[in-house]
Amino acid sequence: MDKNRRNLLKVSASAAVGSLLMSGQGIAGAQTDSTNSGAQIKVVPPLAGKIGMRLATCVLSAGAAPTVVAVLDDGKIIDLKAEAARQKVKLRFDATSMLSFIKSGNDGMAQLKAIVDRATHQKTHLLALEQAQFMSPIPRPNRNIYCVGWNYLDHFEEGQKARADHVGAELPDHPVIFTKGTHTMNGPFDPIPYDASNSTQEDWEAELAVIIGQGGRNIAEEDAMKHVFGYSAYNDTTARDVQQKRHGGQWFKGKSLDGHGPMGPWIVTAAGVNLDDVRVICRVNGVEKQNASYKQMYFKIPRIIAELSRGLTLEPGDIIATGTPSGVGFARKPQEFLKPGDIMETEITGVGLIRNPIRAET
Amino acid sequence: MDKNRRNLLKVSASAAVGSLLMSGQGIAGAQTDSTNSGAQIKVVPPLAGKIGMRLATCVLSAGAAPTVVAVLDDGKIIDLKAEAARQKVKLRFDATSMLSFIKSGNDGMAQLKAIVDRATHQKTHLLALEQAQFMSPIPRPNRNIYCVGWNYLDHFEEGQKARADHVGAELPDHPVIFTKGTHTMNGPFDPIPYDASNSTQEDWEAELAVIIGQGGRNIAEEDAMKHVFGYSAYNDTTARDVQQKRHGGQWFKGKSLDGHGPMGPWIVTAAGVNLDDVRVICRVNGVEKQNASYKQMYFKIPRIIAELSRGLTLEPGDIIATGTPSGVGFARKPQEFLKPGDIMETEITGVGLIRNPIRAET
Repeated sequence: MDKNRRNLLKVSASAAVGSLLMSGQGIAGAQTDSTNSGAQIKVVPPLAGKIGMRLATCVLSAGAAPTVVAVLDDGKIIDLKAEAARQKVKLRFDATSMLSFIKSGNDGMAQLKAIVDRATHQKTHLLALEQAQFMSPIPRPNRNIYCVGWNYLDHFEEGQKARADHVGAELPDHPVIFTKGTHTMNGPFDPIPYDASNSTQEDWEAELAVIIGQGGRNIAEEDAMKHVFGYSAYNDTTARDVQQKRHGGQWFKGKSLDGHGPMGPWIVTAAGVNLDDVRVICRVNGVEKQNASYKQMYFKIPRIIAELSRGLTLEPGDIIATGTPSGVGFARKPQEFLKPGDIMETEITGVGLIRNPIRAET
Repeated sequence: MDKNRRNLLKVSASAAVGSLLMSGQGIAGAQTDSTNSGAQIKVVPPLAGKIGMRLATCVLSAGAAPTVVAVLDDGKIIDLKAEAARQKVKLRFDATSMLSFIKSGNDGMAQLKAIVDRATHQKTHLLALEQAQFMSPIPRPNRNIYCVGWNYLDHFEEGQKARADHVGAELPDHPVIFTKGTHTMNGPFDPIPYDASNSTQEDWEAELAVIIGQGGRNIAEEDAMKHVFGYSAYNDTTARDVQQKRHGGQWFKGKSLDGHGPMGPWIVTAAGVNLDDVRVICRVNGVEKQNASYKQMYFKIPRIIAELSRGLTLEPGDIIATGTPSGVGFARKPQEFLKPGDIMETEITGVGLIRNPIRAET
């Protein structure tokens, strides 16, 4: 496989989506009410390693239950439950649940990889992207999403200048850790609810999400990467006014409005990602707002896992959002915030791209 | 029923437990390794209303799965699953799961109440407290536990004087809200793990826990009490050094060490509690450290539910710890912290009492 090739897919709806994107209109209604969101995926980034996989949670036909699928380099989709049945493989996990698959560990992973390899080789029973409605890979997390604050130095510095609340001015010795409620989880192309009576300062925060595989407590930094199942594109969408001014300096509530944490469109398993090549990018209505390298991350993933798991047991399927780089709206001059009709695009290069419209609640 | 009567139960092990309590020795080993923790319950506080119930999650024989029980005024226990089968009632919920029962709403509640009434009347098949190992009523919450900070004025004031970190000095317009991880949940008589290499400033915070019944979003203050399923005794046990100094002012991590949130011994359903009569009390090794009335609470429960549910969907079984009064260890002069062998007792009058030893991790 050519690692540098970007698979530009011929997707019938892409031209239409593109023009909607530019005008900032109509996506929200189109994607959730009629078009399957897979049609919005125009590029499947190549994997860094041959043994990596892209795993998503999709609805494959109207009214069907969500199920786990593998997404191939050419954008074709394998329905893992159906394919296992066709190959007469008795799965060690529930193929309708990403959490069940993650818990199955190396045995489940080996089993799934074999199924995908056979299906890819046979090239039968593959589905097209346009047939799938993409949900968050983990639609209902087992507990709150862990998040790291101030984890890119340039974001730390812009925050120091822009904030009204009390924040220490010294570089941190330990990562800032907070959580987002489980109802923040949202699909990769689903709308972010906007309620002006609650917040008029909705802001973007593009982030690389880490999905924990094997759980553990007091995980040493040198062992931490063995506990990573994979990566996904994530946006820690934040109501700044609620975060900074309303609840005494604790960020939880301003970070936890329903639907304010889209993830997807899939998880790339750890072997498929070269972290040093990862860039974290946010665009609003097509205009780039954030763009930084994993190399600029202050506390790297091994340190984050070690700090988080100190006295706190991590579980398979736990999600860690690793922090956002500079370029968020509240730190801009003048400040910028999201408004209904805006399109927030979050790209993690080598992993995937999600695109969420802001939609006023009625 | 005499509302003022306190049912002093004749429990064979109570004398032994009392002497262990005074010496601060041995409870931890005794309760978890051999004695069923029900033997530690010496008083069952009377209910404020006849239609209230005490519901617990217990293991009723060695090796059995946890199941939901009702605890009667005289301390006798009804195994709800077994009793429903005996009464030939097909339950609308899974009687081994408190969360399943809470989700079943008014229909489940009416069904369970009828079963309990018949069993109480017949006085057969009742079990003794000593037969039960009491777990947290909700051993594994669906997501993080919500907590309110600075919710008693005297605690706010003592905190202002004692803290090194940056906290606003003005009285809050909105409650401070943070969360504790799901692994903080601990049984009513189980040990709190102590790891001096992580924290040497373990502190107590006795709190009234509210258990949400019917879920909802943007719940109005005037409707909020309809969403309360019941109450339990809770301790927001806190590693002060981790909370205040290690993670940039966000409290999550210092509040979220495994086992640092015991709850129980049961949930008293809302109809069984008169909030104005509730006192929140903490004792360490038998010495009273905190004692305040619900009336001193700054943001009362309706306001807390309204603020929390603003843009954030609450679910059946969600747990809200409503804040702690003054008297915590870090604000004392000199400061006091928990150490291995200490016994932390949390009493919510009219609800229940939990008692947790501090035990060094090996």
